[in-house]
Amino acid sequence: MQFSALQLATMLDGKLEGNPEVKVSNIAKIEEAGEGMLSFIANPKYEEFIYTTQASILIVNENLVIDRPVHPTLIRVKDAYSSFALLLEKYEQMAGNKSGIQQPSFVPKSVKLGENVFIGAFAYLGENVVLGNNVKIYPGVYLGDNVIVNNDATLYPGVKVYANCIVGNRVILHAGCVIGGDGFGFAPQPDGSYKKVPQIGNVVIHDDVEIGANTTIDRATMGSTVIRQGVKMDNLIQVAHNVDIGVNTVIAAQTGVSGSTKIGQNCIIGGQVGMVGHIHIADGTKINAQSGLSKSITSPNTSLTGSPAYDYKSSLKSQAIFRNLPDLEKRVKELEDMVKQLLSEREGV
Amino acid sequence: MQFSALQLATMLDGKLEGNPEVKVSNIAKIEEAGEGMLSFIANPKYEEFIYTTQASILIVNENLVIDRPVHPTLIRVKDAYSSFALLLEKYEQMAGNKSGIQQPSFVPKSVKLGENVFIGAFAYLGENVVLGNNVKIYPGVYLGDNVIVNNDATLYPGVKVYANCIVGNRVILHAGCVIGGDGFGFAPQPDGSYKKVPQIGNVVIHDDVEIGANTTIDRATMGSTVIRQGVKMDNLIQVAHNVDIGVNTVIAAQTGVSGSTKIGQNCIIGGQVGMVGHIHIADGTKINAQSGLSKSITSPNTSLTGSPAYDYKSSLKSQAIFRNLPDLEKRVKELEDMVKQLLSEREGV
Amino acid sequence: MQFSALQLATMLDGKLEGNPEVKVSNIAKIEEAGEGMLSFIANPKYEEFIYTTQASILIVNENLVIDRPVHPTLIRVKDAYSSFALLLEKYEQMAGNKSGIQQPSFVPKSVKLGENVFIGAFAYLGENVVLGNNVKIYPGVYLGDNVIVNNDATLYPGVKVYANCIVGNRVILHAGCVIGGDGFGFAPQPDGSYKKVPQIGNVVIHDDVEIGANTTIDRATMGSTVIRQGVKMDNLIQVAHNVDIGVNTVIAAQTGVSGSTKIGQNCIIGGQVGMVGHIHIADGTKINAQSGLSKSITSPNTSLTGSPAYDYKSSLKSQAIFRNLPDLEKRVKELEDMVKQLLSEREGV
Repeated sequence: MQFSALQLATMLDGKLEGNPEVKVSNIAKIEEAGEGMLSFIANPKYEEFIYTTQASILIVNENLVIDRPVHPTLIRVKDAYSSFALLLEKYEQMAGNKSGIQQPSFVPKSVKLGENVFIGAFAYLGENVVLGNNVKIYPGVYLGDNVIVNNDATLYPGVKVYANCIVGNRVILHAGCVIGGDGFGFAPQPDGSYKKVPQIGNVVIHDDVEIGANTTIDRATMGSTVIRQGVKMDNLIQVAHNVDIGVNTVIAAQTGVSGSTKIGQNCIIGGQVGMVGHIHIADGTKINAQSGLSKSITSPNTSLTGSPAYDYKSSLKSQAIFRNLPDLEKRVKELEDMVKQLLSEREGV
Repeated sequence: MQFSALQLATMLDGKLEGNPEVKVSNIAKIEEAGEGMLSFIANPKYEEFIYTTQASILIVNENLVIDRPVHPTLIRVKDAYSSFALLLEKYEQMAGNKSGIQQPSFVPKSVKLGENVFIGAFAYLGENVVLGNNVKIYPGVYLGDNVIVNNDATLYPGVKVYANCIVGNRVILHAGCVIGGDGFGFAPQPDGSYKKVPQIGNVVIHDDVEIGANTTIDRATMGSTVIRQGVKMDNLIQVAHNVDIGVNTVIAAQTGVSGSTKIGQNCIIGGQVGMVGHIHIADGTKINAQSGLSKSITSPNTSLTGSPAYDYKSSLKSQAIFRNLPDLEKRVKELEDMVKQLLSEREGV
Repeated sequence: MQFSALQLATMLDGKLEGNPEVKVSNIAKIEEAGEGMLSFIANPKYEEFIYTTQASILIVNENLVIDRPVHPTLIRVKDAYSSFALLLEKYEQMAGNKSGIQQPSFVPKSVKLGENVFIGAFAYLGENVVLGNNVKIYPGVYLGDNVIVNNDATLYPGVKVYANCIVGNRVILHAGCVIGGDGFGFAPQPDGSYKKVPQIGNVVIHDDVEIGANTTIDRATMGSTVIRQGVKMDNLIQVAHNVDIGVNTVIAAQTGVSGSTKIGQNCIIGGQVGMVGHIHIADGTKINAQSGLSKSITSPNTSLTGSPAYDYKSSLKSQAIFRNLPDLEKRVKELEDMVKQLLSEREGV
């Protein structure tokens, strides 16, 4: 896609300075932008780049003062950052603007399709699947029987959704994530083997959730594993059966949540965190990367770290002393020597 | 699927109380069951729900005493829990009762198919693949050349099995797991680069194993990576080349096992555990979540925690003191002051 | 594939001892090799096996002395290990020698194909994809619009590469890995929700890189996430947006690297390591498994362990004392008692 400075200035309602015919086909940070690229300057500390950049078009604030000739065509707008973000969004929308049903794909007659859906080649829809309007099903996606995908959701290549799961409006599922695999439930038998406990629940993903690549969310034993509105989950996360994750909670990559644990809303959870099953995490809890939670967190808005995790500030102090444990042990040894000396002197008296 | 109370009572050889025509199409826990749902009461502490539940049908023990009218139709059986579990299994079997070969799929002439196999659309079978009876290959599964899948195994969507691997009877492989990728073996070269060591072994998965979504099990350099009978592995686990996992061992999500490590039988291994390569873990070892094992465990039936991991009880004590390290350091400081005082007084004498 | 002793001896320019007609169809370690298998002895400590092995053909050093009859046909060569490694490579090449375009696959007219490419069934190529010579695209691979895959690269089944990413020469991507998923970037809103920050960059994978199964590498917000020449990454690794990994760095399974972190060259990073974002790791850094890095490492060639990670040797000492913390606390308690005693005696004086 190519755009001229004139086109962009018109889109942004901006004022042109320079050649209106110059064209860009790519976007970059000001430090990295070259010929044929669009960039922006919003932060004063980047203004020095304006005289050296080889970018073809720059979006700048309307009051930016320049005192020498510059290479790029300028587009002056009220708020350069917002205008640039707006262009990013439009650029992304155009890039992802797929529609139609590619062949071969597998779409049984019992499937209900909304308007303007995209179904990529090699996508598989089970019986009675329902797709809302503007849903994008990328190539190689698998939807089991009775899966419902609501309006404006995007399922990237190779996403697998097992039977009976529900995906909310505007949800984004990244490539390779698995929604609704069997929960890990086995009953120990007298001979040391394990018998599978049937997992007949589902996963319900509410609106505006985004889930990262190769993340796995297991179906409930009975009932639902629930991911609530606005939750954002990164790549390679494990969510076990019957977990419930609260509104607007954010979870970084490679974290694991064990069965039936309930996480509150507006929590911020770092990467590689582990949580045991059947605990409750209060609203607004912040958990540092690599922490391990073995108990419920009952007070909202606390910060935790460590494995097992506890109060962030205390934990940092313990960690600092841990680093000096050899020194602490040496001090204890010296004390022992001195005290022994004092005691022996007393004996001697 | 809909069932009447009469149908269910007949299936379970139970005694009906209430309307035999009432129908259910779903199953739920007693706390959550509503109209059109089936539930059960086996545990006395849930008996209070019998007067408030809106479930349409309840399975209860034959000796359950009720003293007021109830909403659901009751089915009285000898053991309510067992009867309910039996229904769950039947429900699951019906839901998963796929057969036939969907098109398009890729099945070369050299492939040997057992009776009653299911091959989903977009599944790919390499040359000389052998499928046993009742094998279910879901859509988008990849089986490399010479792969053998034995009777009654189920491979969920997007499972990838590299060439020459063997999958046992009744094995379940969940969506996206990768069996037989190259082991991670590289020979360092004088110039700092690495040369790939060819990985020509395979993976052998014995009977009754279940492997979770997006888990990865690498092929052996030579010989086999072996997952023995009855092993249950959760999602996102990493198993490196030449590992051997013993009968009926259970491993929770996101654990990693490095190359050539041998795990005994009947071990229980928590989530996010890491093990270095070339160690042996004795039978019956229990390893707590997030532990790190850097040495062999030679005594069977021990419990471990921590990274590096050691005896569970001692480790808990150390962790408790760790939390109070700032306090311990303060006590040492106070001792130092007091002893210094004593010493100076002695000098003064 | 079957080979006679004569064929192998000719290939390796070796000297035959025994039946030149005996055939092998498999390769194994000397301890495990049986009838119909090829093995080798290079290390003197394995020489005892020569009299007991049931292998059909053995490659041995030309100067190996034997004083009794042996079962296998021998092929004597200058360097048995090198000759065997050569055979392994040839064996692997033959096994992976796929070519042609299988149907059905999805290859738009705008795609440019090099010579001798393999495209498996159910592979999907977006608009303007470019494949170099000898590229192997296994079944079920997804390549987004404008993806470039250079010469001799191999993409195993189910690999997903999002639009605009670049894959270097001789790169190997294992099954299920996801290249170019959206970076995890969200702007917090006043109401507690998060707004997605468009991720319009890409991933650039340089030559000779190998990436493990189900590993995920996110695209940059703007610019590129970069994996440099010769990097080897194991399974289930997470690489966030705008990360840069230096030449010949090796990373073990399940490690996670947060956004914008820059790792130097020739680093060796263990499994399950975590790194926060926006730090720099100096060249030649060695990081132990399960470590957590929260700060930049500025001195090259250091070794680190722990979470938070620091100097390897000091950390081991602290860990050793950690195990004895209950003992250390007891010693402090005893000191307190003794000092209290001494103080009270002084008072008494």
